Amino acid sequence: KKKPLPNPTIYSNRGMTLEEDINETNDYYRDTGKAIIHKKPTPVQIVQVDYPRRSAAVIKEAYFKQASTTDYNGVYKGRYVDFEAKETKNKTSFPLNNFHEHQMKHMESIIDHGGICFVIIRFSTLQATYFYPADSLLKHWKNSMNGGRKSISLESMKKEGYIIPIQYHVKVDYLHIIDMYYSTNGGNNNG
Amino acid sequence: KKKPLPNPTIYSNRGMTLEEDINETNDYYRDTGKAIIHKKPTPVQIVQVDYPRRSAAVIKEAYFKQASTTDYNGVYKGRYVDFEAKETKNKTSFPLNNFHEHQMKHMESIIDHGGICFVIIRFSTLQATYFYPADSLLKHWKNSMNGGRKSISLESMKKEGYIIPIQYHVKVDYLHIIDMYYSTNGGNNNG
Ligand SMILES: [Mg+2]
Ligand SMILES: [Mg+2]
Repeated sequence: KKKPLPNPTIYSNRGMTLEEDINETNDYYRDTGKAIIHKKPTPVQIVQVDYPRRSAAVIKEAYFKQASTTDYNGVYKGRYVDFEAKETKNKTSFPLNNFHEHQMKHMESIIDHGGICFVIIRFSTLQATYFYPADSLLKHWKNSMNGGRKSISLESMKKEGYIIPIQYHVKVDYLHIIDMYYSTNGGNNNG
Repeated sequence: KKKPLPNPTIYSNRGMTLEEDINETNDYYRDTGKAIIHKKPTPVQIVQVDYPRRSAAVIKEAYFKQASTTDYNGVYKGRYVDFEAKETKNKTSFPLNNFHEHQMKHMESIIDHGGICFVIIRFSTLQATYFYPADSLLKHWKNSMNGGRKSISLESMKKEGYIIPIQYHVKVDYLHIIDMYYSTNGGNNNG
């Protein structure tokens, strides 16, 4: 008797956020010795801390700070990897105002220093997740600063990005795309 | 008339912490295009958040989480750089219980993945700051787990580490040591 093969697409309906999917993927990469990638902690400005006797310090007042860098970084085959993850409910384009100027400057610096830099963009309504190289993003962002289009069309995303297939243990298998992208771009192009 | 040259050693008396010195160094590295290295935000477990009308969300209850990785990471010449900074008032040795097991495991993984990994250790009383390769640290730590010495003697620190001279704009010029360490170790040794 054949056991029915589980359908990978059911995973996209579980209500998992992109961040949860990436965290799971990173755990898998770590456990299998493929790469060490961590989510950076949320930056918080701490204002007041209580130190109750015999128990842990309690933060009583703090504020969320705007992230000056990206969500994730780490090491893959000795190289520095840095990326941001974003979800949108839009169906036809990705709005560029999802990125802050200092995030864009950060990504530009990472490329300048030879790091691997990209964004993972999920169109949640379309159930489609893309690996999108930071150099393409920077091109669109600079163009928008000069009065150009304020979003990346789905068409550009399909042309310049790479769809990340949903898989069992690796929900967002971006290393696979890094390997592919660097081999087809001769290893010199900064993803 | 000759202007008196400022004495670099006065800087070590200013009451700057090692963390402040490293942050300043990293700013300098970024501004001069040498490397992109950031301090990771303090990991915080957020329990309660208030959302007052017309103003920013206020975190009302949160706790410090134990860091599972290290203090700093980033990119230098395309490579992944990862390090921890520690200060001690001890004069003759550095106690190994300053490191947690998961930090040691993290450093070991970084080495396995070809990243550049080290610790910066300041003996504040001695006004001496060392670049100490993670592989040497791991060797001492494993030895201590097997009943060996629970600290790194100053002698070992001098032999296996590299003193970081205090300078004007670059308080803790560790990139200089990375260059030196990798050239003398043939580039294959994981710092
Ligand atoms: Mg994000
Ligand atoms: Mg530290």
